[in-house]
Amino acid sequence: FLNVFESIQQAAGELPINLIFVFEGEEERGSVSMPKFVRDYEQKLRRADGVYFPICSQDRNGLARPSLGSEGILYIELETNGALWGRGPTQFGVHGGLKRILDSPAWRHIKMLSTLVSDDGNRVEIEGWYDDVAVPSEEDLRLLKEGYRHSTPAVEVFDPEILKEMLKVKCFKGDLERPEEILREMLFSTSFNLDGIWGGWTGPGTKTLLPHKVMSKHNIRFVPKQDIDDLFRKIRAHLDGHGYEDVALRRLAGYPWALVDHKNPVAESLYDVFEEFGVRYTIYPPVANPVLTSPAWPAYVFAGEPLKLPIAGGALGHGGLAHSPNEYIVVEGCEAKYGYIHGLEGMEKSMASVLYHFAQR
Amino acid sequence: FLNVFESIQQAAGELPINLIFVFEGEEERGSVSMPKFVRDYEQKLRRADGVYFPICSQDRNGLARPSLGSEGILYIELETNGALWGRGPTQFGVHGGLKRILDSPAWRHIKMLSTLVSDDGNRVEIEGWYDDVAVPSEEDLRLLKEGYRHSTPAVEVFDPEILKEMLKVKCFKGDLERPEEILREMLFSTSFNLDGIWGGWTGPGTKTLLPHKVMSKHNIRFVPKQDIDDLFRKIRAHLDGHGYEDVALRRLAGYPWALVDHKNPVAESLYDVFEEFGVRYTIYPPVANPVLTSPAWPAYVFAGEPLKLPIAGGALGHGGLAHSPNEYIVVEGCEAKYGYIHGLEGMEKSMASVLYHFAQR
Repeated sequence: FLNVFESIQQAAGELPINLIFVFEGEEERGSVSMPKFVRDYEQKLRRADGVYFPICSQDRNGLARPSLGSEGILYIELETNGALWGRGPTQFGVHGGLKRILDSPAWRHIKMLSTLVSDDGNRVEIEGWYDDVAVPSEEDLRLLKEGYRHSTPAVEVFDPEILKEMLKVKCFKGDLERPEEILREMLFSTSFNLDGIWGGWTGPGTKTLLPHKVMSKHNIRFVPKQDIDDLFRKIRAHLDGHGYEDVALRRLAGYPWALVDHKNPVAESLYDVFEEFGVRYTIYPPVANPVLTSPAWPAYVFAGEPLKLPIAGGALGHGGLAHSPNEYIVVEGCEAKYGYIHGLEGMEKSMASVLYHFAQR
Repeated sequence: FLNVFESIQQAAGELPINLIFVFEGEEERGSVSMPKFVRDYEQKLRRADGVYFPICSQDRNGLARPSLGSEGILYIELETNGALWGRGPTQFGVHGGLKRILDSPAWRHIKMLSTLVSDDGNRVEIEGWYDDVAVPSEEDLRLLKEGYRHSTPAVEVFDPEILKEMLKVKCFKGDLERPEEILREMLFSTSFNLDGIWGGWTGPGTKTLLPHKVMSKHNIRFVPKQDIDDLFRKIRAHLDGHGYEDVALRRLAGYPWALVDHKNPVAESLYDVFEEFGVRYTIYPPVANPVLTSPAWPAYVFAGEPLKLPIAGGALGHGGLAHSPNEYIVVEGCEAKYGYIHGLEGMEKSMASVLYHFAQR
């Protein structure tokens, strides 16, 4: 991206627009300092007209997907412990034969967890959980089905069979089959996942043990207008209301959703570039989390209060396997299913082009 | 024990009774070959009048507790796996954000486990589970309260407060307080314990993961006349009846209870010896599992079909911390709360004495 400015300065003498740079090196930690950064520099950042996130966004078929907004995430840990409960073993696991005379924190954890979701595990049974859900709008659904400008509608390029093959799954929840239905759930539904659970004897063979505690981790996805603090409170209220006042609830991570208008000027500049370069693109509605390809980015810190700036991310080019040993980026372009995948050169050109298009708006 | 025979042979010339030795080195593996051994040598073993298990049985207060019979144990493992279910991820955990469109084997495991026990975790909710329970008898309860011969009744020496302190528990299930009630549950009730559970991300911090499987281990204690194969079938029938046909149920270990008459001649010979040496003793009813001090021994292979031999175990002396780094046995005798704890010499004498007393009966 910095090469782009050097080239523009050498060729044109000056940039088409003024820029404020925000560099951040904390993405892997959930960008925890960004909200404070925004508060501290609010007056300066307010002078911006929009936020552009330079990232190559073609997939391996050559289809470009601009990044617009993001869902909300809340990650919690639950612990049932005899010490907190005051019943059963409190400091260490005891002999399993003692179950005959002792209460079990482990069974209590199972019973507690069981109250959180419906029998099929797919509906959150916490009171008021769905109260504030405000997506999808009619426009969101129209965007998925019909697209916008020259974009390819998401329902046309989303192939459930490829996803099934990739994930090695045989069916989706509720036996959803139609791309439209699956996309709708994937992009706009809220979920309460059981990420991990452990307690007691987990080694090979047999060991008779009555554990004093069991822990579980849960990742919750939420959407506009659900509020992260409100959801956290509702979980606590649910536990208390079901007699689980003693169960520890810890908030490990999380951030709000970002609702971004897909017609905002930064996004429109991106579409301009895709069309200029003849690249097919698909627009997912705001709070979209396109399958496995969404970058985790703190869109909310710019799109939400207090700045409320239009924000979008994207450029030509393709990279993949982030965090894996063979992480890669395409250096020289190549043909693919939906058209040409641009290499580094095209990526840089497209970033420059975004700036010019935005300047014209 | 072998020293005893040498001494008797040197002093008296011959043993007071004929002996068949059964050595076994498999206790830690659950004595898995013993049933076959008994079948193979049934004709020879039938010639025995009783079975004596030489083991020092004084506790650290000096109180002797003869071993009479044992409870039944069944150890199982349950697994909910997307591959078996045909829903959700089937081969590996996938990104937790996919919970929005995928079913969760992890939640299914929680829901399945939740059907097995009552809300307080203390009653087994499997149909017909308690049908065959035939203990305690009136005689069992009388034995606990009143003892037999010169024994000290169990209710007099059982101190719930010491047990609470040892185990670091604040209360027993159902807030049982009276020694009689606690002993009754400990000795005669059946339990379905959750020994361990694991699945998904169990490391530090956060990882958003939708696991493809969750496993749990369970130790079940059962009593006369419950049948181990019948209980196993009832668990399977419960799972099937609740729509969990796909949940894998594996039997890892187990053996039947042994019902031994506390007035059998081997046991009476033991009481003779305790009285002869002036040692206080407490008799727990058959299928007793006195708190934390019961040896895991395959009493059932001799006490049950086809041999149905009277069986008892015990002698003077005290050892402890079996399997721990500081496992010990008392070599020289010492005074304790309920009387003299015999060392190795007294242990050997008492074993010899058991043989003579049995010979007289």
